[in-house]
Amino acid sequence: MIPYAEMTTEMLQAEYAAAKEKFEACKSKSLKLNMARGKPSKVQLDIAAELLTVIQKPEDCFDGEIDARNYGELAGLPCARAYWADVLGCKPQQTVVGGSASLNLMFDVIARAYSHGLLHSPRPWCKEETVKFLCPSPGYDRHFRITEFFGAELITVPMTEEGPDMDLVEKLVEDSSVKGIWCVPKYSNPDGIIYSDKTIRRLAGLKAAAPDFLLMWDNAYCVHEFDGEFIPFADIISVCEEAGNPDMVFEFASTSKITVAGGGISVMAASEANIQYMLKLLGNQTISYDKLNQLRHVRFLKDKAHTLEIMKRHAEIMSPKFAAVTDWLDREIAPLQIASWNDPKGGYFVSLNAMPGTAKRTLALCKEAGVTMTDAGATFPYSKDPQDSNIRIAPSLPPVAELEQAMDVFCTCLKVAALEKMLNI
Amino acid sequence: MIPYAEMTTEMLQAEYAAAKEKFEACKSKSLKLNMARGKPSKVQLDIAAELLTVIQKPEDCFDGEIDARNYGELAGLPCARAYWADVLGCKPQQTVVGGSASLNLMFDVIARAYSHGLLHSPRPWCKEETVKFLCPSPGYDRHFRITEFFGAELITVPMTEEGPDMDLVEKLVEDSSVKGIWCVPKYSNPDGIIYSDKTIRRLAGLKAAAPDFLLMWDNAYCVHEFDGEFIPFADIISVCEEAGNPDMVFEFASTSKITVAGGGISVMAASEANIQYMLKLLGNQTISYDKLNQLRHVRFLKDKAHTLEIMKRHAEIMSPKFAAVTDWLDREIAPLQIASWNDPKGGYFVSLNAMPGTAKRTLALCKEAGVTMTDAGATFPYSKDPQDSNIRIAPSLPPVAELEQAMDVFCTCLKVAALEKMLNI
Repeated sequence: MIPYAEMTTEMLQAEYAAAKEKFEACKSKSLKLNMARGKPSKVQLDIAAELLTVIQKPEDCFDGEIDARNYGELAGLPCARAYWADVLGCKPQQTVVGGSASLNLMFDVIARAYSHGLLHSPRPWCKEETVKFLCPSPGYDRHFRITEFFGAELITVPMTEEGPDMDLVEKLVEDSSVKGIWCVPKYSNPDGIIYSDKTIRRLAGLKAAAPDFLLMWDNAYCVHEFDGEFIPFADIISVCEEAGNPDMVFEFASTSKITVAGGGISVMAASEANIQYMLKLLGNQTISYDKLNQLRHVRFLKDKAHTLEIMKRHAEIMSPKFAAVTDWLDREIAPLQIASWNDPKGGYFVSLNAMPGTAKRTLALCKEAGVTMTDAGATFPYSKDPQDSNIRIAPSLPPVAELEQAMDVFCTCLKVAALEKMLNI
Repeated sequence: MIPYAEMTTEMLQAEYAAAKEKFEACKSKSLKLNMARGKPSKVQLDIAAELLTVIQKPEDCFDGEIDARNYGELAGLPCARAYWADVLGCKPQQTVVGGSASLNLMFDVIARAYSHGLLHSPRPWCKEETVKFLCPSPGYDRHFRITEFFGAELITVPMTEEGPDMDLVEKLVEDSSVKGIWCVPKYSNPDGIIYSDKTIRRLAGLKAAAPDFLLMWDNAYCVHEFDGEFIPFADIISVCEEAGNPDMVFEFASTSKITVAGGGISVMAASEANIQYMLKLLGNQTISYDKLNQLRHVRFLKDKAHTLEIMKRHAEIMSPKFAAVTDWLDREIAPLQIASWNDPKGGYFVSLNAMPGTAKRTLALCKEAGVTMTDAGATFPYSKDPQDSNIRIAPSLPPVAELEQAMDVFCTCLKVAALEKMLNI
């Protein structure tokens, strides 16, 4: 195999005919495979089977004197706050342990910024003429959508190997209508990038014109290595405090990809001043989150060390799946030089950049052949990838055998789309 | 005993001396009793012990093909939607089964009305010059606070024996800035009133000037009889539809006072058009609610019939507590004619109207003697009871023995406050 770019038109036409034939063969299999979302697989969910039995009797339902079955403790059970403080490296009083979705905690922070303002807001964001939000891209569509939902103008910031392009970020935050930035600091979605220490320090030290500039720090994959040892991460609350921006950051995490997807427990961490402020607002919206599930999780996960042991079992399941994806790409696509991709050690995604102008077409072809992937463009603000190039591959859900089938289809579709483009078909 | 109003000043002074002495004796006991909130007692929470073991193994976690442990099903598990449809008498597709707090679902509806508008809103409520909300009072402080939080002007509507004063409501809704009304149709909080069929029909048939007028129908105590048989209630969704206002109502309920307080499952029911609209908005905020807890609840509660059996067990525990409260009042207060109260057959509260101008003082005295009650005024908008008269008694939490002690204190404080008032002390 030689790169497509080095082929003659005749060679490309022959390649196209072969790829098209392969595509039709794939289609005839009537597959129904899904690599759209970062969903854990059934075997991963079974890892947390013990969670189902760890609380059995009424007398198991107590955290000290507190009955987890009754109203109260808006900030979460003390043992659950201590658990998350251990995992994130912050203080228990810097946490609010929430319900089953960290996304909802993020939504609530942005929603409150809009309707009532944050701790240092001169006014609610809905009273501002313009609110702009920085979206390092490719990034997570659900993040971008929250800020879009509240009418913010989304500004694309390119990703580098070390995280968001900080030269650009530092320039953009001189505009006082820029109110915040979305960050996934460890195994960024979808690139799998770990922000460098320098990038983290520059983010924490931002001299933003907006007094209520908001670092949305979604530490979704904080303990989610699937290849190699746990990589420690900085406590962003302290780093921001040391940089003179103690109230700039809200950090989020959940056990959705540790125990039960959409049925775990979530956390929001921030300075004590921020936590007190948010609790005052949250008190209008709920009496308390599900403390029984918090207790169940603490009993099962115990602490950070034990959580990391559990993550090793996830790694055993995830690792061969990611290997399958990159093996297919290395074998089928690399020699053709029509795409590039990352090779992450953790997180849930492989981020692939196809030949510009072919991502949408590739995924349309995949769909035709029964393979559902995240929509092209989804990783950019307003779902518009200016290059029509980025594709997010989520290999966690299907068993390896299905994944191999799906990757066969995907590689074929990548080729067909590239060849169509090159041959102007 | 004769009524205070018929006593001479000398008699009142003697009564006061005796009551004051009794009060000091109460104080010296250093009690620490709480009747502030409608919290279930430990024995009630133990009724749902089976909830802790009803799902034990990974294979128990399926609702048909759906793995309750994975992302998805924003509207709730099909079996959970069917459960609530059975309880509420509506259709499964008219429900969204939420997390552990129905209050949060109510908050989200009002929050979305403000930020984005409802299905028939000409504009988001935050863009309206004035938004007014009707608050039948005495009512639930947390309801009132949600609308206050979003800047609505709260309008007090008196309660009658049949529910809100409908003549007044019908007049008030001619004002297009009146956007909705809070209702607890069965065992209203705190009066324990069951809205009459006529009141319900008049509410459902309201010809409101606001096209997006909102009936917030908190059916919190829909199956919560503690004295006598279950009293059927109308499906408000159908009643509104028949009255030509299909999209006017959102109904809410939860299992907080059936299984686990703040750890149960909640529901929002409305027309299919409303549900589709809200799901579109909710999709920006979360991926799905905790379906494992939904499944656990359906396995334990089964259906409406079985839920009513479980409620009988709650009734056995609740009934003697309410009897203790009304016995004390009948014995100690009734002959003095210084207060009136209801005698509910369900719900969580006894609503007492003390001599005007004495509610705050009564509760301050209670606090001094170690008995915490819901703050005076809490049952009115802005926590301001114009008569300073209404007191909400929540007898569910303390064991009967403690309740007797607390009622002894409370009756003493009622007397002291009334006598202070009459004697201008």
